[in-house]
Amino acid sequence: MEAGFPDYLCRCGRTHVVSADRWRCDCGGPLDLPVTAAVWPPRQETHSMWRHAGSIAGAAELPWPAISLGEGLTPLVAAGPRLRLKVEYASATGSFKDRGAVVLVALAKALGATRVVADSSGNAGTAVAAYAARAGLAAEIFVPGGTSEKKVRQIRGHGAEITLVDGSREDTAAAAAERVERAGLFYASHVHNPYFLEGTKTYALELFEQLGGTVPDTVVVPAGNGTLVLGAYRGFAALLAAGLVERLPRIVAVQAERCAPVAAAFDAGRDEVPAVPPAATLAEGIAIAAPARGGQLLRAVRESGGAVMTVSEQDIVEAHAGLAAQGFWVEPTGAVAYAAARRLEAVGSPLVEGGVVVAPLCGSGLKATPPER
Amino acid sequence: MEAGFPDYLCRCGRTHVVSADRWRCDCGGPLDLPVTAAVWPPRQETHSMWRHAGSIAGAAELPWPAISLGEGLTPLVAAGPRLRLKVEYASATGSFKDRGAVVLVALAKALGATRVVADSSGNAGTAVAAYAARAGLAAEIFVPGGTSEKKVRQIRGHGAEITLVDGSREDTAAAAAERVERAGLFYASHVHNPYFLEGTKTYALELFEQLGGTVPDTVVVPAGNGTLVLGAYRGFAALLAAGLVERLPRIVAVQAERCAPVAAAFDAGRDEVPAVPPAATLAEGIAIAAPARGGQLLRAVRESGGAVMTVSEQDIVEAHAGLAAQGFWVEPTGAVAYAAARRLEAVGSPLVEGGVVVAPLCGSGLKATPPER
Ligand SMILES: Cc1ncc(COP(=O)(O)O)c(C=O)c1O
Ligand SMILES: Cc1ncc(COP(=O)(O)O)c(C=O)c1O
Ligand SMILES: [Zn+2]
Ligand SMILES: [Zn+2]
Repeated sequence: MEAGFPDYLCRCGRTHVVSADRWRCDCGGPLDLPVTAAVWPPRQETHSMWRHAGSIAGAAELPWPAISLGEGLTPLVAAGPRLRLKVEYASATGSFKDRGAVVLVALAKALGATRVVADSSGNAGTAVAAYAARAGLAAEIFVPGGTSEKKVRQIRGHGAEITLVDGSREDTAAAAAERVERAGLFYASHVHNPYFLEGTKTYALELFEQLGGTVPDTVVVPAGNGTLVLGAYRGFAALLAAGLVERLPRIVAVQAERCAPVAAAFDAGRDEVPAVPPAATLAEGIAIAAPARGGQLLRAVRESGGAVMTVSEQDIVEAHAGLAAQGFWVEPTGAVAYAAARRLEAVGSPLVEGGVVVAPLCGSGLKATPPER
Repeated sequence: MEAGFPDYLCRCGRTHVVSADRWRCDCGGPLDLPVTAAVWPPRQETHSMWRHAGSIAGAAELPWPAISLGEGLTPLVAAGPRLRLKVEYASATGSFKDRGAVVLVALAKALGATRVVADSSGNAGTAVAAYAARAGLAAEIFVPGGTSEKKVRQIRGHGAEITLVDGSREDTAAAAAERVERAGLFYASHVHNPYFLEGTKTYALELFEQLGGTVPDTVVVPAGNGTLVLGAYRGFAALLAAGLVERLPRIVAVQAERCAPVAAAFDAGRDEVPAVPPAATLAEGIAIAAPARGGQLLRAVRESGGAVMTVSEQDIVEAHAGLAAQGFWVEPTGAVAYAAARRLEAVGSPLVEGGVVVAPLCGSGLKATPPER
């Protein structure tokens, strides 16, 4: 074990010492961290997700105070009698990815890395670039060729090197991984590095605090690679392990109809998620054709008594408009969970039986807008 | 007095009962509210600026719980040994204007208004539109003709009616005021309505809490109409009135060199601020040629032992780049206070003698970017 950092686990049974260049198991499987009991109460005087530092693996070794941009502790506001929206876009880089990115970059720094690599067409790449800049680490961000000039400019503004990859999102990830392997660099991957999920875990811990020491009956969460779904699952599991709650909330993962490999696998009762052909959707943040943690996603959702569902392009456009009419301004992907929650309520689904339903507004409308209706 | 709301005061000596259609004194002067002692401690369990509801005039009558988008309680992060940055752009609509807009809209609702009017080319208009949508109030937003399609679309998305005014920012304000007068509507003006300053006041109260019960030695604040300067002043004055601090921090107001009526009046030792010809600057958020509360701004700055200074276009571009290189992403106006703070530090100005200097990052870089260098 690297001092202060628990060993990585793999489904194949191997364990691995945490180090700057370890990002997957020798078997190719994704690395995990053990679930540990949440530490309660959080530190009241810290007004960010780091009030839950006691519940984040290795936090005592992470130089987060110098790197934090005050991410997390986002507002939870009512949108109807039972629905609560968590305003994740009110964050330094405008999305929930800040929760994971700050932990990854702090880990890189703690492990002595001076350069990090990430791949993303969107929010994760921006977040890693911003936190790397804050931490004084060099960053290389791999993005697909068609990425908007505005995003490229922001990432460059943060001092990161951009590599435009000719090809799909999957090709982009492959190019980043190759660079990481060849140069022995720290891979700040929101998909592969389980410390990202230690960050997104705080989503669940904040809900527990903001709901006065209870958990929602249902959390509706968008899923591409599933970093918020898995983070939320880990947070709720940590509360359960601490005996603070008696059950997990139902986790309803939501995909775009046009790119829904996890939903297809769920419906087919499978244990793993076969890749689907890449397809474009307004919800570009969750257009992931081959999610690396697909099997974990299915297990988390099933264990919670939840489900995986899809929303159409039309649902997304309408949810975006409905949110705006109530004062919320999200990017199209940010409307996905709300679209699903409204539909479940409208049809009286047993998935939202009980009291409180929570959906996150994951990304800011200042980043992207749906086409005019 | 309207139940729960203290009377408005004017410099001419008149007082006025608070009502939905009262927005200036019969003498034309701006309305004020009395300074009252801050109520301490804040409510720990409220994770927004409303933890300071006890210090906001009339808050007990305001339906803010149903209207809040969780504004305020923004991060305060270090940027060097003495400089702290308050990340005001990590807010629902991406700027500090949310603090004032939520109070104005709650007031409109409390007074029985069903429709509000505002004028702004930027952040204030967006914020009023968002909160009016949240509150279920109709909104009319007057903007100058050249306003970007993206902003217009967001304001419309929130259900507000947009009126494009052919002419300057001053003409836009005049058109809004005329509409207000003619129809007897609630004028949700960040410039004229002093309840906006009750919102921005929480900026100072949060600093006091985040700095462990002390105030900074100096706060550097951008000033167009001066709503953050005057709000901060009111917050610090409230702490002083409560005996919680012994002195005001020095308030350094910052204007763009190209449009600096307050700085010119300060330098000339005047008590009022003569209008200057409108002029364009990268810092469009503070390009105010005739600030309605100019005299108040001068008094607040002088009473605090502070000053009014200017920054050049080049300073703004460099500050923007410097912030981005540290992980912060602001609109050009959002770099103004940082530019000034850095300059004061670099020249060893007595204005920043002592310990802690705080500058806000007022608006998100997702809203606007400076031209490429
Ligand atoms: C706005 C938004 N929502 C949701 C997601 C989904 O996150 P994940 O791919 O980890 O499931 C993303 C990912 O980029 C996103 O940007
Ligand atoms: C980003 C930003 N900073 C500063 C200001 C200045 O506020 P005020 O005009 O109230 O001084 C504004 C006003 O629009 C703004 O949008
Ligand atoms: Zn393995
Ligand atoms: Zn008067």
